[in-house]
Amino acid sequence: MIKLEDVANKAGVSVTTVSRVINRKGYLSDATISKVEKAMQDLHYIPNAAARSLQGKSLKLIGLVFPTIKNIFYAELIEKIEQALFIRGYKAMLATTEHDEQKERDYLALLLSNQVDGIIYGSHNLKAHDYIAIEAPIVAFDRLLTPETTVVSSDNFEGGILATKALINSGSKKIAIFTGNDNTNSPTYLRRDGYLLELERNQLKPHIIKIPSQWTLLRKKVEIKKILENNDFDGVFCTDDLTAILVKDLASNLKKSLNVVGFDGTEFIENYYPNLTTIKQPINDLAELLVDLIIRKIDGDNIDITYQLPVQLHYGID
Amino acid sequence: MIKLEDVANKAGVSVTTVSRVINRKGYLSDATISKVEKAMQDLHYIPNAAARSLQGKSLKLIGLVFPTIKNIFYAELIEKIEQALFIRGYKAMLATTEHDEQKERDYLALLLSNQVDGIIYGSHNLKAHDYIAIEAPIVAFDRLLTPETTVVSSDNFEGGILATKALINSGSKKIAIFTGNDNTNSPTYLRRDGYLLELERNQLKPHIIKIPSQWTLLRKKVEIKKILENNDFDGVFCTDDLTAILVKDLASNLKKSLNVVGFDGTEFIENYYPNLTTIKQPINDLAELLVDLIIRKIDGDNIDITYQLPVQLHYGID
Repeated sequence: MIKLEDVANKAGVSVTTVSRVINRKGYLSDATISKVEKAMQDLHYIPNAAARSLQGKSLKLIGLVFPTIKNIFYAELIEKIEQALFIRGYKAMLATTEHDEQKERDYLALLLSNQVDGIIYGSHNLKAHDYIAIEAPIVAFDRLLTPETTVVSSDNFEGGILATKALINSGSKKIAIFTGNDNTNSPTYLRRDGYLLELERNQLKPHIIKIPSQWTLLRKKVEIKKILENNDFDGVFCTDDLTAILVKDLASNLKKSLNVVGFDGTEFIENYYPNLTTIKQPINDLAELLVDLIIRKIDGDNIDITYQLPVQLHYGID
Repeated sequence: MIKLEDVANKAGVSVTTVSRVINRKGYLSDATISKVEKAMQDLHYIPNAAARSLQGKSLKLIGLVFPTIKNIFYAELIEKIEQALFIRGYKAMLATTEHDEQKERDYLALLLSNQVDGIIYGSHNLKAHDYIAIEAPIVAFDRLLTPETTVVSSDNFEGGILATKALINSGSKKIAIFTGNDNTNSPTYLRRDGYLLELERNQLKPHIIKIPSQWTLLRKKVEIKKILENNDFDGVFCTDDLTAILVKDLASNLKKSLNVVGFDGTEFIENYYPNLTTIKQPINDLAELLVDLIIRKIDGDNIDITYQLPVQLHYGID
């Protein structure tokens, strides 16, 4: 384990100076700060709870690092997290990092230099080695960071099974899955595994269609239209609701009869697309759990590595 | 103008102590901090730029205080603001304050106690006297706080005219406006004024229907359905897109032929409801302008009181 002394040696300064940089105390030149911060980053040093508590007058700030808030699922989750943090006396610092690895790293540096008390990570550009400092107060949502980082997620596997069962029950036989990128670092791939298992149980053939999340919406529309025209699927499981809406609309334009099941189940979808059948993630419970875990981690409590909350099949009303 | 000495007198501490509270420097008891912060709030004292710059190692944090991010218009605006702040070396602290006056006041206190460098206000629970400290780095979006606070908004008046013209041009004669609460502290009421002027020019009778924003969506649906059943409107101008979608859907369920125009024009609406005609606010320009103004205000530059950006009529494609 990296100690304060190691950082001091690497930076060529005294232990007291390192401690003052961590706690932003007394006069410090910019050169000293950057020397010490570089050493901390190079060594993946995270100030421990005791060092942090020295800071005392902390703003009690939690970084929320997520790909985007323009996706309504993240918007609902993040709003709930922010509100739950506020009740517990913490403030939320928001960072949207879609396709921006460096920005994620910058926010990790804020944690290293003790400017935020903890981070809830819902983005996934970084590689595991970035997170090697496993003692830091980090809790991940739906992302596998390191084997030691706590991950909160919905029961994605069961969700995949439920969605596929719903399609089979409505009479579909040729059932495709429309899924985003293959994130082996995200437990969301379990949605596909659930789909595969349920098809196998029913001796049906899988059809895996990748819809990369970095495609623009216009491109997605064009590609999905082609896919629907060139195949005779009678059921599609989309691993997110917004894709499910597109597929439903395009199928209806093409006068194709198609059963569609989505995934996420936001308040927005329930209200504005009540006819979409979907797998509902327990957004409020996920938010409360993430907040509770990050605060317990900051307070030095032991928390488990994996927390999984159940999902529900929500039938659309036509 | 309130001085450091006044705060010290009121709190019964030395000027040095007040300065240390502002800059979170040295040992301070919780009792001292809260005494000084209360005195600052009571006197509406804002540390000036010089006092702030003493802090030196500031996190460069801007509070974004908005009603919600679950409304896609706010989500797109806030994401863009956060990204523009990041490029300029600032971080975003998010607070959602819908119907929560106390929370807004709490974030204002962070500004008073110098824990954030500035605030962009998009919420509107507070009364003007809360903002009496006019020198603070505050920029408002679509909200009239005090006569001296800078307000950025779209050209709401022109938007109301354009929307009403579009309805008249599609042949509508009995045109209603569906609008939220009467916020005399928000320039969005100008949307209604534009509607009224354009009807008058065409010698048409106005029909103002209030859809309070605090109604749940279910209640909104029930009430809008009744309104559509009990009236024979042939055109409706909704002052936001989400209400416009509801009205369109409900009218189509009731087999009523109705022209609808919305307001906001997000990327989301353009992509997922391409058939909605709406007044497009320039979201990216609004975000860039808000960020530029708050940073200039922090840097001590003079900025104007009112900034208004043009809107565009966007035709839906059926």
